[in-house]
Amino acid sequence: MTDSRETGLALDPKWSAEGLITAVVTDGDSGAVLMVAHMNAEALRATVDSGEAVFWSRSRGELWRKGATSGNTMRVREVRIDCDQDAVWLIVDAAGPACHTGERSCFYRRITGDALESVA
Amino acid sequence: MTDSRETGLALDPKWSAEGLITAVVTDGDSGAVLMVAHMNAEALRATVDSGEAVFWSRSRGELWRKGATSGNTMRVREVRIDCDQDAVWLIVDAAGPACHTGERSCFYRRITGDALESVA
Repeated sequence: MTDSRETGLALDPKWSAEGLITAVVTDGDSGAVLMVAHMNAEALRATVDSGEAVFWSRSRGELWRKGATSGNTMRVREVRIDCDQDAVWLIVDAAGPACHTGERSCFYRRITGDALESVA
Repeated sequence: MTDSRETGLALDPKWSAEGLITAVVTDGDSGAVLMVAHMNAEALRATVDSGEAVFWSRSRGELWRKGATSGNTMRVREVRIDCDQDAVWLIVDAAGPACHTGERSCFYRRITGDALESVA
């Protein structure tokens, strides 16, 4: 099943019931997945227009300009959108750690069987 | 704010109200983001145990072994989980296109201002 949202060149995000889409962020140099977050329409617009990553914080219920407090901003090289337009992929240059724990990537553990193992 | 879910080595996924976590899939060779999907507990367990990507299809409401019908399976090199354990990152070897449209990646369009541009 395909439709114009999938094959066309019109930006037409499929917002969730909460008005959000998923945002995956990868490092422009290493290709590593740095984080997964969410965007509402305002965050997506702000990201595209400013060239800096802006998300919607579900926990705080507010717009979240990445690095506004930590200084670890993310310069956006490119924003891609997936087939059904409910997820975007940001390729960025990160000024510092993406994760609030201080790790460069939020994905600093691998799953091994029933447990986790640090890869940091 | 950190807690044992973030700093520990116990697998303790933070399931959504629908019992799901987000799954990001990247190509083990190119590093490209191939797709974003969802997993319930059964899908995550099946993926880790079998080494093949298994998701939960929200549209069909059933377990979705990637490639079961298309043949485009995904061999999993590694599964990582993020700080708050509500997203996993699968590094895979893909037997074929990840996208049902036939594109290698679901992210075959970039956002340019108010429109999209094909990058396939």
